[in-house]
Amino acid sequence: MNKDKPVAEPWLGDVLDEVLRQFNPCRECPSANHVRGANLPGQLAITETLETLVSLLFPGCHGRNPESDATLSGASLRLRLASVGTTLRYQIERVKAFDCTSAKGDCTGCKDCKAFAEHAVAEFLRQLPALRSVLHEDIQAAYEGDPAARSTMEVVMSYPGLYAIAVHRIAHTLFALGVPLIPRVMSEHAHARTGIDIHPGASIGSGFFIDHGTGVVIGETCSIGRHVKLYQGVTLGALSFQKDENGNLVKGIKRHPDVEDNVVIYAGATILGGNTRIGHDSVIGGNVWLIRSVPPFSKVYNRQPEPEIRTQAQ
Amino acid sequence: MNKDKPVAEPWLGDVLDEVLRQFNPCRECPSANHVRGANLPGQLAITETLETLVSLLFPGCHGRNPESDATLSGASLRLRLASVGTTLRYQIERVKAFDCTSAKGDCTGCKDCKAFAEHAVAEFLRQLPALRSVLHEDIQAAYEGDPAARSTMEVVMSYPGLYAIAVHRIAHTLFALGVPLIPRVMSEHAHARTGIDIHPGASIGSGFFIDHGTGVVIGETCSIGRHVKLYQGVTLGALSFQKDENGNLVKGIKRHPDVEDNVVIYAGATILGGNTRIGHDSVIGGNVWLIRSVPPFSKVYNRQPEPEIRTQAQ
Amino acid sequence: MNKDKPVAEPWLGDVLDEVLRQFNPCRECPSANHVRGANLPGQLAITETLETLVSLLFPGCHGRNPESDATLSGASLRLRLASVGTTLRYQIERVKAFDCTSAKGDCTGCKDCKAFAEHAVAEFLRQLPALRSVLHEDIQAAYEGDPAARSTMEVVMSYPGLYAIAVHRIAHTLFALGVPLIPRVMSEHAHARTGIDIHPGASIGSGFFIDHGTGVVIGETCSIGRHVKLYQGVTLGALSFQKDENGNLVKGIKRHPDVEDNVVIYAGATILGGNTRIGHDSVIGGNVWLIRSVPPFSKVYNRQPEPEIRTQAQ
Repeated sequence: MNKDKPVAEPWLGDVLDEVLRQFNPCRECPSANHVRGANLPGQLAITETLETLVSLLFPGCHGRNPESDATLSGASLRLRLASVGTTLRYQIERVKAFDCTSAKGDCTGCKDCKAFAEHAVAEFLRQLPALRSVLHEDIQAAYEGDPAARSTMEVVMSYPGLYAIAVHRIAHTLFALGVPLIPRVMSEHAHARTGIDIHPGASIGSGFFIDHGTGVVIGETCSIGRHVKLYQGVTLGALSFQKDENGNLVKGIKRHPDVEDNVVIYAGATILGGNTRIGHDSVIGGNVWLIRSVPPFSKVYNRQPEPEIRTQAQ
Repeated sequence: MNKDKPVAEPWLGDVLDEVLRQFNPCRECPSANHVRGANLPGQLAITETLETLVSLLFPGCHGRNPESDATLSGASLRLRLASVGTTLRYQIERVKAFDCTSAKGDCTGCKDCKAFAEHAVAEFLRQLPALRSVLHEDIQAAYEGDPAARSTMEVVMSYPGLYAIAVHRIAHTLFALGVPLIPRVMSEHAHARTGIDIHPGASIGSGFFIDHGTGVVIGETCSIGRHVKLYQGVTLGALSFQKDENGNLVKGIKRHPDVEDNVVIYAGATILGGNTRIGHDSVIGGNVWLIRSVPPFSKVYNRQPEPEIRTQAQ
Repeated sequence: MNKDKPVAEPWLGDVLDEVLRQFNPCRECPSANHVRGANLPGQLAITETLETLVSLLFPGCHGRNPESDATLSGASLRLRLASVGTTLRYQIERVKAFDCTSAKGDCTGCKDCKAFAEHAVAEFLRQLPALRSVLHEDIQAAYEGDPAARSTMEVVMSYPGLYAIAVHRIAHTLFALGVPLIPRVMSEHAHARTGIDIHPGASIGSGFFIDHGTGVVIGETCSIGRHVKLYQGVTLGALSFQKDENGNLVKGIKRHPDVEDNVVIYAGATILGGNTRIGHDSVIGGNVWLIRSVPPFSKVYNRQPEPEIRTQAQ
């Protein structure tokens, strides 16, 4: 028996030979997580780290098993922090080493990637208690801002907006520390679960609440103040993309709006452009299309199109 | 070795001490599922109960393993009903005990929570056969209402609108029996999977069909008749929130529309307000914004804005 | 002890008897995956096959474990292809046998279903290398089309638009081979994860990119050219449904638009109707509502409603 050819049903055998000839290993192609021996952590590995972090911030809320005094403190908590810190360090080192290998051809024995990862994780963990405090303000904002909310625990255990901002605060902290790829995979995991698409680069103040949330898009260079409230389908996006002399998009420039404190933006509103600034304490109505700045305390409403109503007498 | 300090890599050790000092156990804070010894069932525990109920209503459709005559009836079915009933009773008792502990400081030995849970589960199970019959009408409505539907099994196994209404009918039945928290966690699980956000309080008649569905929002105090059809992005929402003398939102009042029998609402329409009533056999066009009632047999259309078309000759 | 009555807690026993009398086995009803001994593969079984196919196209990207040279080629790759081919053949045979049993009452010993399944899987596997090449163009289009994209690996590992088009290309290939049900279950799995709803019947050219994506709907009879770019909330849908003399919807006729090469369609645009054709190199602006054809090189914009801005001096 040819050891290179594991047994397959007869109808399948010939097809496999044919497919294998064309489906050759694709080590350097854009669809394989594999470059000269270096691998990125897979999507599922990253989202498991994310869920562990979420379970430290909201113990007992999202999983299957209850927490007790013993598991929430002391040696037990220390062990959980150490464990997730070690995993995260390993994953960050790998994304750095992948970039390093792509750029330099080899990263074997490179100490920069490891040092970067240790520094990033240490800083991230140091910021975790403050991050949790900010989330407490987000929970309170959701509870106060939604007449349907029965309790703060209902907010934590079921509101997609709270989950999305929790993941964003984790991802944004890693993004600000210069960690590649991982923050974006985390954000898109929240996007998949909630329909809320917040780029990890966006900066968002405390007491933030998104109600319903499906279809919300918040771009990379947005800056949002404190106590801002959004509804489903709101876009804070780019107006147009700048291209360089070769016709390629310029990356990294400011292209999304700023939203100041205490602003409410109702469902389906679209606010575009890096020079657009919504002054504090403003209200933006449903379905508004806005591509310029408004001063503080503005109320911006669509003249909603009056629908045509034909009633058929019976 | 200090038993309170499990081994961590040296780079991590000092950071952990620093973080632990601030990240002290947060037993009474809004982010921990833990109040004086009582715990709510976690999100995942609740959604597993939900999936078990779904698999009783649609046997063999959503899982991995086929069903047979033997597993669909008799002792086997009885065992499955007993098992999910017991789990649900335990979960309902815990949400009641959590509320009870929050309010009274202690619920040890309290028999009200247990009695409430037993009564709720018994009533819920009694309503399950009727609930399944209503879902059969929903399946038929989807099959008849979508030219792309090949078979009723395709509807059951793949249509997000059918999954969303199935979960809603389960959650609404529990909500109507006064069960806290659990219905909302179930609804938001369906929201996460489908992009369809139906508050468990909403009342919805048989033969209901949502096509595509992403972005649909149906508020808590909506009342929807029989044979209603919605498309993606429809909002049945609140127009404004009433506040009490202290500036807090008033909870529990009627604030979402009523939709009568045989109404069709096309994609992106927004219908708002607790006094808004859509008369039976009406059609609401795409993107319509409607904040007042219309009589039966109305046809409501947007004068769609005529787009500006510039064509560049080549 | 009555062996037909497994033990249940006393409070539950009487209820179970009552429920079981009405909740009798529902073998022929529209909610049970069971017809005269034949079963469709369950939703989860199908999506697991899908994920295996995705992991062959993007090795190491979506899972937990890294790939190496050894696992990406030779005997290992052959084994994986043989394994997924065998599973898929079994699942396709079952969906054919279910239809066969529904139509003819019995499919025992029928060889057509097995032959169909073997042919479909062989053809599908033959097309897999070309399918992967097309996805490489999709990856490149996403990287070039989004200023926020840092690398092609970020696109593969996190972009919902790339995941949605990968699943679509798998589902569409099976759909074109006449496989029932399975393609639709696959498409709706991608819809659940991404908010992007592409019917497996739609035909889509290479270099396709959907940014953000939540709320996108692409209908069954759409035809889309090469290098087309869509944003969130775009609908390519039907204008109205044709009914036969009995008032039932006519299935299978052309009812969705055609979009030619190099078209960009911005967020929230709605394009409807089987006779609507968007000429190549056109740009359709945000929120445009379009129900007729436009020639090549058109620029179609909404006269966006000028919002009313009231500013309260402080």
